Amino acid sequence: MFQPVYLDHNATTALDPAVLAAMLPWLEGQYGNASSRHEYGRAARRAIDQARQQVAAAVNAHPTEVVFTSGGSEANNLFIKGAAAVFRPGSLAISAIEHPCVLKPAAKLARQGWLVNEIAVSANGQVDVEHFNTVMAGKPRLISVMTANNETGVIQDIPALADAAKGAGAWFHSDAVQALGKLPLDFRALNGTGLHAMTLSAHKAYGPKGAAALVLDKRLELQALIAGGGQERGLRSGTENVAAIVGFGVAAELAASRLAEHASEFNLLKARLEAGVGELGGWIFGLDVPRLANTSYFSFADVDGETLVSKLDRAGFALASGAACSSTNPEPSHVLRAMGVPADNARGAIRVSLGRGNTEAQIDEFIHVLRATLVGLRGLAAMAA
Amino acid sequence: MFQPVYLDHNATTALDPAVLAAMLPWLEGQYGNASSRHEYGRAARRAIDQARQQVAAAVNAHPTEVVFTSGGSEANNLFIKGAAAVFRPGSLAISAIEHPCVLKPAAKLARQGWLVNEIAVSANGQVDVEHFNTVMAGKPRLISVMTANNETGVIQDIPALADAAKGAGAWFHSDAVQALGKLPLDFRALNGTGLHAMTLSAHKAYGPKGAAALVLDKRLELQALIAGGGQERGLRSGTENVAAIVGFGVAAELAASRLAEHASEFNLLKARLEAGVGELGGWIFGLDVPRLANTSYFSFADVDGETLVSKLDRAGFALASGAACSSTNPEPSHVLRAMGVPADNARGAIRVSLGRGNTEAQIDEFIHVLRATLVGLRGLAAMAA
Repeated sequence: MFQPVYLDHNATTALDPAVLAAMLPWLEGQYGNASSRHEYGRAARRAIDQARQQVAAAVNAHPTEVVFTSGGSEANNLFIKGAAAVFRPGSLAISAIEHPCVLKPAAKLARQGWLVNEIAVSANGQVDVEHFNTVMAGKPRLISVMTANNETGVIQDIPALADAAKGAGAWFHSDAVQALGKLPLDFRALNGTGLHAMTLSAHKAYGPKGAAALVLDKRLELQALIAGGGQERGLRSGTENVAAIVGFGVAAELAASRLAEHASEFNLLKARLEAGVGELGGWIFGLDVPRLANTSYFSFADVDGETLVSKLDRAGFALASGAACSSTNPEPSHVLRAMGVPADNARGAIRVSLGRGNTEAQIDEFIHVLRATLVGLRGLAAMAA
Repeated sequence: MFQPVYLDHNATTALDPAVLAAMLPWLEGQYGNASSRHEYGRAARRAIDQARQQVAAAVNAHPTEVVFTSGGSEANNLFIKGAAAVFRPGSLAISAIEHPCVLKPAAKLARQGWLVNEIAVSANGQVDVEHFNTVMAGKPRLISVMTANNETGVIQDIPALADAAKGAGAWFHSDAVQALGKLPLDFRALNGTGLHAMTLSAHKAYGPKGAAALVLDKRLELQALIAGGGQERGLRSGTENVAAIVGFGVAAELAASRLAEHASEFNLLKARLEAGVGELGGWIFGLDVPRLANTSYFSFADVDGETLVSKLDRAGFALASGAACSSTNPEPSHVLRAMGVPADNARGAIRVSLGRGNTEAQIDEFIHVLRATLVGLRGLAAMAA
């Protein structure tokens, strides 16, 4: 089968073979329900306990701080809705570039009487510290600012923001789904600076779809989104997806151990890619600020991103024109709008997110094909003009 | 490795080999995010579409009526909370023997001003029709009555209840998690009698943990529990667990095709089991009413169910003393309490839930071991007295 070159690792990643190998026994003979008290059940419980330790160790948290969920969207909804449910309506602060699974729960709270403050970002995609401080003066009860953006890869200075937020006395959460395996994450240290919760997801880091976690300061009492049998200390009921959780544990361990290697490898590939993009006249978003090593987001004048991605797909390169999770949405990216990028420029945006297995030769071939595609599209545009 | 005989299929089941085979490609080369527009993503989308058709076909629903979730608990929470969120607080009717993932969301609604009517059941575990009609006269907005109980296996007459509820004009939901693959389910016909929604789960029917569905009359507009990228027509956001959903599709297809074979096979095994249990002086719950072919729930005088299950586990038989999902709860079963079973008798309850692979020889051996275990326990009790 023809396999296009995969350049969309921020959307999802392939299972690491070691992850799949660890999962398989739990998809075969070891099928117990972890709540069952017989040997099948106890074996499943031990496997989940081990995965909880692995995930905790990967981000320097305590195993009891790890709440497994079915995905990052669920974990983000759990924090926003679950924390809001224990307060009377007050004020909530989120950055303008959060994922829809933070923005939409926030919008729901707004309809329930909460005042939602969207913290502005600068043209380079970083949170505007001055605006952040202004919002903090209003003493929000809840704050959510992502660690690294899925589209631009721009990294926020979470320790500094958490420190600046301390006076507000808010519960501070960060969606770190794009950071796991790409940035060092130290929940203990972050908790010390004033961060209380963090979302992780397995499938963004060579783990399975269907497992994620909210890492949570145990002093916070959230209301469960899914109530029932009382799994996950009552914070997330439902039969545990044992195989996926086991896979998450191994993926988290691998993510932590490969951090340095990945960063240097992807930074080299990204520099090669962006040199080519620059030569082709591309505009790279967030170029001047810290970004994830694997993520490059750029656009070309007078070229539609959707069209470009579609042509590149047919030419054998799989990448995204926007966040995969909102690809059903034809609007230009809300992240680029928040950065003040003109709509025309935003509509041209395409994202390369690198991952394991990508090579220099692939990048060179990609630039070659991109050049030809742009020439073709611009030729058509010139003919139409 | 020593493999105890598994008699706990209502807690969870092993993956059917055909299900695992169908899942594997989606855990290996086919890892796309179904929201991505490139070929990896489109392939994942097609696989989900096919699974949606398979699940729909298994219960005679339309594919657009199938909303995939991460589990049965999530689907039940989605219905109860998602439906309640579109109404002003009113009255809600649920049976007293629902799973905790219905009872707890209902209890939460009670704290928000809803009047929660618990519909009584008779001593045999069936909904008390007279009480049901009384509750219906109060015109509840929402109703949830499970199709078959996880502990007793007792089957409710959902078409008759839905018909009786018609005058109330309520939205009627049934948790059919224990019914898939054990009873014929015809959503189209049930919808005609007045049922609006139904919960299914893959892992109770030889499918994977991590995939389930709310089958939903499209005239009902629920509020999403997990908001974000807008997957599942906006009713359930989050990157789809493609492999688990694919496995659910195959499991649902197999469940429908094996229905008759399973029913006759398990009815024979159950008769053999219950003859033995009767000889040992066991009391079988729900004996006089329609029950699932695979489920037998019984207790012995002066014997503690937990202790018995623990001894049987060591003797090589895996079964439950109560619903697995509430095994962390030392209280006697709320189902048996609702049936008016005295606490002492309820504390003795153990459940055998049969499944594929169970044999007559296993049942005979189980009765043999059960007899010896009871003799041992009663000997100890007599000595202590």
